[in-house]
Amino acid sequence: MSNTVHFKHVALIGVGLIGGSLALDMKSLGLAEKIVGIGRTRANLDKALELGIVDSITQDISEGVCGADLVIVAVPVLKVASVIKDAVPFLSDGCIITDVGSVKERLIEEVLPLLPRGVSFVPAHPVAGTENSGAGAALVGLFKGRNTIITPTGSIDPVDSAESEALQTVTELWRSVGSNVVVMDSKEHDRILSAVSHLPHVIAYALVNTVASAGKGAGEGGADTDMLSYSAGGFRDFTRIASSSPEMWADICDMNAVAIVEMIEAFQKELDSLKSFVANRDLTHVKEQFNRAKSQRDALVKGD
Amino acid sequence: MSNTVHFKHVALIGVGLIGGSLALDMKSLGLAEKIVGIGRTRANLDKALELGIVDSITQDISEGVCGADLVIVAVPVLKVASVIKDAVPFLSDGCIITDVGSVKERLIEEVLPLLPRGVSFVPAHPVAGTENSGAGAALVGLFKGRNTIITPTGSIDPVDSAESEALQTVTELWRSVGSNVVVMDSKEHDRILSAVSHLPHVIAYALVNTVASAGKGAGEGGADTDMLSYSAGGFRDFTRIASSSPEMWADICDMNAVAIVEMIEAFQKELDSLKSFVANRDLTHVKEQFNRAKSQRDALVKGD
Repeated sequence: MSNTVHFKHVALIGVGLIGGSLALDMKSLGLAEKIVGIGRTRANLDKALELGIVDSITQDISEGVCGADLVIVAVPVLKVASVIKDAVPFLSDGCIITDVGSVKERLIEEVLPLLPRGVSFVPAHPVAGTENSGAGAALVGLFKGRNTIITPTGSIDPVDSAESEALQTVTELWRSVGSNVVVMDSKEHDRILSAVSHLPHVIAYALVNTVASAGKGAGEGGADTDMLSYSAGGFRDFTRIASSSPEMWADICDMNAVAIVEMIEAFQKELDSLKSFVANRDLTHVKEQFNRAKSQRDALVKGD
Repeated sequence: MSNTVHFKHVALIGVGLIGGSLALDMKSLGLAEKIVGIGRTRANLDKALELGIVDSITQDISEGVCGADLVIVAVPVLKVASVIKDAVPFLSDGCIITDVGSVKERLIEEVLPLLPRGVSFVPAHPVAGTENSGAGAALVGLFKGRNTIITPTGSIDPVDSAESEALQTVTELWRSVGSNVVVMDSKEHDRILSAVSHLPHVIAYALVNTVASAGKGAGEGGADTDMLSYSAGGFRDFTRIASSSPEMWADICDMNAVAIVEMIEAFQKELDSLKSFVANRDLTHVKEQFNRAKSQRDALVKGD
């Protein structure tokens, strides 16, 4: 790596799984002289300090961001804009703000009007995570080999030199922690994520509810059958993401509603045609659909 | 364990993941004097012999089942009846036939007319498995702590003493290898499995195809976007079952079409109502649905 980034004072707002893991990597690589953890929950901040994720902690945004050259906003996506609004009056000229939210278009619309001259915003989304949350879930190397998608607020090839420099800095930051950085339009990002992440979560939640409901009154004499108790490993893996935070995922559904609804509808068409094939015992087409999916899925994990 | 079963000659037709794993457990527990592996593919039989899963092998059903006191049919569910038909002329009086198929009602309808007097059939389904197949995938202890569902061909409490004894024997066999045995009606079995296993597979295949299709022509200038390349661990776990055998799952869809279509429709209703909540930005209801699913899912894995 020829380019390496270095920050004097990083303000990390939201020390959870993503923010905490990024801070751990930055510290172990020596990318920051100090990282200040900012959050609302004292217990989580204490834990972050105890785990060595951050160098100091505060519940006061103004205190934490004052003098920062980089502000990383790693709070739930619905709260990013209001956190930036609170931070803005205390930011120095030349400061770069970045985030890790999984929805980009609406976020940019919300944040752009808040930014003062001299402060750059580079939206980023590391496509990584587990269903766990909080500082205690932070992991070294979480982003290694993962895609981080950066969606510039203006054009993908900015002409403004400060914006261009900020984009370069955030790109180098994510490359330094091992991410494969992809720069794309926010709308494209939101559509891709609605497919590979948001839709599967919606489906997983709906599936668990379907199976739980199917057991109601299904047993002998109208007793309930605990359908879920008959599930095997496949079902458990398949529904692991239904254990994710309902608040976070409801926020994402709100922020990316249009793309998610569109993707649900594409899935509904696919499922409906598969249902017709099954109902008609059209094994040729059922097998054809299953084969198509299997070859795509197998190609996906071949490199793992 | 006060009751232990013991067999002189076990004929295992189909030495794959399930049949092979059961044979491994039976051998390590000393439940059988000899286990003969019967199959169509020489290479798989050779592998089974080499791995010590069976004591001898043959491609000739008549030779393999002759003199057996237990015949375990562990072939794909659509082929169980035809395999039993081939075996029947060579079975001795008192022989018990059992299977491991994941659909029961139609299977029983197909098998019952084939059975001669003096031969019992005890349908069983160990709810366990991985997406791998073949003798090489067989594992010791695969059924430990898993449910094995037994669906008697007659009533759940048989009056016929031979049938009752056969049911008891197969129950003890599965208990011996660590399974939790549940006896239920075949129709109930098929409905439960359509929910916890068949529906998730259909959904996983449909989801992978949806995401792959969504990338068609979605890139710059109408180029394809490889959507799947942006997926993270959640998507990979979620779609693992889409790597299962298309042939096997098409067979299951055929055998259990009615229950599966019914369960797809229950899921479609659930997804449709969730889609409306998202489209209307009705966060209260979205969160309520997600919370309901999460608490069910969390309860499911609490014991793991």
